[in-house]
Amino acid sequence: MNVDGIPHRSIWFEDDTATLRIIDQTRLPHEFVIAALHTLDDACHAIGSMQVRGAPLIGVTAAFGLYLALRTGSGSAVMMDAAARLAATRPTAVNLRWALNRVMTAIAAHPEQDEATVALATARVLCAEDVATCSRIGDHGLPLIDALWQKKQKQGVVNILTHCNAGWLAAVDWGTALAPVYKAVAAGIPVHVWVDETRPRNQGASLTAWELARQQIPHTVISDNAGGHLMQAGRVDLCLVGSDRTTRQGAVCNKIGTYLKALAAWDNQVPFYVALPLSTIDWEADSIPIEERDADEVTHIQGLNSQGRMDRVRLTPAGSPALNHAFDITPGRLVTGLITENGIFNASAEGLARLKQTDS
Amino acid sequence: MNVDGIPHRSIWFEDDTATLRIIDQTRLPHEFVIAALHTLDDACHAIGSMQVRGAPLIGVTAAFGLYLALRTGSGSAVMMDAAARLAATRPTAVNLRWALNRVMTAIAAHPEQDEATVALATARVLCAEDVATCSRIGDHGLPLIDALWQKKQKQGVVNILTHCNAGWLAAVDWGTALAPVYKAVAAGIPVHVWVDETRPRNQGASLTAWELARQQIPHTVISDNAGGHLMQAGRVDLCLVGSDRTTRQGAVCNKIGTYLKALAAWDNQVPFYVALPLSTIDWEADSIPIEERDADEVTHIQGLNSQGRMDRVRLTPAGSPALNHAFDITPGRLVTGLITENGIFNASAEGLARLKQTDS
Repeated sequence: MNVDGIPHRSIWFEDDTATLRIIDQTRLPHEFVIAALHTLDDACHAIGSMQVRGAPLIGVTAAFGLYLALRTGSGSAVMMDAAARLAATRPTAVNLRWALNRVMTAIAAHPEQDEATVALATARVLCAEDVATCSRIGDHGLPLIDALWQKKQKQGVVNILTHCNAGWLAAVDWGTALAPVYKAVAAGIPVHVWVDETRPRNQGASLTAWELARQQIPHTVISDNAGGHLMQAGRVDLCLVGSDRTTRQGAVCNKIGTYLKALAAWDNQVPFYVALPLSTIDWEADSIPIEERDADEVTHIQGLNSQGRMDRVRLTPAGSPALNHAFDITPGRLVTGLITENGIFNASAEGLARLKQTDS
Repeated sequence: MNVDGIPHRSIWFEDDTATLRIIDQTRLPHEFVIAALHTLDDACHAIGSMQVRGAPLIGVTAAFGLYLALRTGSGSAVMMDAAARLAATRPTAVNLRWALNRVMTAIAAHPEQDEATVALATARVLCAEDVATCSRIGDHGLPLIDALWQKKQKQGVVNILTHCNAGWLAAVDWGTALAPVYKAVAAGIPVHVWVDETRPRNQGASLTAWELARQQIPHTVISDNAGGHLMQAGRVDLCLVGSDRTTRQGAVCNKIGTYLKALAAWDNQVPFYVALPLSTIDWEADSIPIEERDADEVTHIQGLNSQGRMDRVRLTPAGSPALNHAFDITPGRLVTGLITENGIFNASAEGLARLKQTDS
């Protein structure tokens, strides 16, 4: 998508200089900084520190990270060690492991080729696939927004609430939850997005608002507390969120607070859709490890100070502990549907079974 | 309650100097500042800027504000104008108007006395009544916590989740939702409080955490997004919140986000109690005006910077609008009970009718 009129992706490999580049998302929305990742350490740090985040982008970055490790080393010990380190950066993201497996499988399938070359080629394929996948998620979600627009008799705007950032910054391009929004805007449907700020890391206020502003899409930042009230007041037509991991029973693990919005949507008969690539479905496990991040993310926050410089301020009294779970789980019963690259499916064991049949 | 071992109230009239003093709550938790209110303007500013906040404390401050106006002026025009200005500072707080009426009724009943003298005496009475009321709310709430402690067979701690600040800083002393907590601690029951930070103004992270830390009560600050996950995980035994205004049907208007926690409590069979003085019940209206505050409270936040100074940082991209409703409404069907100074009542038209019979 565009940044100041110039098309960008969240990650790209620059051939001329053989350099992997990312948008450093920890600096947004106040500074637009492009960073280079040269080593496995750089890739692990980028994922762990959330310079890159979002399930699809984490997977692609991990694939490139494996390439970076194999560029300076080789052999299965180097590869396995790198994969283990990359996999450990974020415990909840299932497609991190999926992407690593894709690269390792490709390497195993091509023993005659240089490991680094295969890793790079596979990472590039994952990149291209992710763009195509998200575009298809957008295509499948667009009719939902169009139906709401028709239902409103093309009056006003379609109000969509989203939590966290599941836009193009969370993927390579398009995004998951925001892909239908971008497609709807392209189709001429007027939309307005309620952007949950998404404490503690404020990916909504920092990233989703920034993304939407860059595309000139009307939006309003709200506190995470506000969505229920807006739904009660009839000011939300649709909730659209992403997913970090979805179980085969249809439970959705997404940014902490998603469950609360799903409850409010249920209580107010607002459709609640989750957009996700198939790579984020966990076909094996029934339970999901919930990442606990540093309490500092709750006790402190970063922003632009009165001198126009990035600074970090403490919010809580010294000595008051904090707890910081990154995700929660929304039961499938609260989810109207799962929007995937293969269509829309029920968030139930039956729906997932049907979805699996499309994934061949 | 104690601050550094010394008993304090949130507001008091100092006889020696004839000065009204408050704790400036906009400076907490980083600075403990006592401010003096000399004029009606000071009182309006203190309420509007939230140097004082919380339904009971707003009422008491307004009563003293009327005294401050009458100290330098007299006559019904002065009084009515002052009352109108004070009433306009916070549209949702019903006991602000209740307190003003108490003072004006007392003045009307004693035409032989100096208006300012009557106003001051009545404000002092409201202060004393509020302390007694909150203490009784604590007494009525204590058995609920004790029952949970017995149910847990006196193992571990009773985990209580609260939203915003309904502690002694929201009243004159004791508080509403925290009064049962303070009484439980005094009764030797081990409690641990989950403190919702309560964006956008962070009254939980700033005030509730500070209050609890001063009394050495175990607590943990969490993002507003986290409560649902904690309830799903069985880590919350009880939700206890305050109310800014309760309708005669039992709907509870409290800090934005309360409704989301009530939904989560309902979904996880966690008891959800609301503690309130009778003065915050609106016996007349069926709908409640929801205050919309400055969007700056969402786009910016205040904290202690790396140099140890209070500073304000911008969180959102420039040009992204924000919306800031201060309250939401929790339907009575989600409320387990209303804890008042006259006992615990159902949050229904029938419960409120019974409660009204006790209020004579």
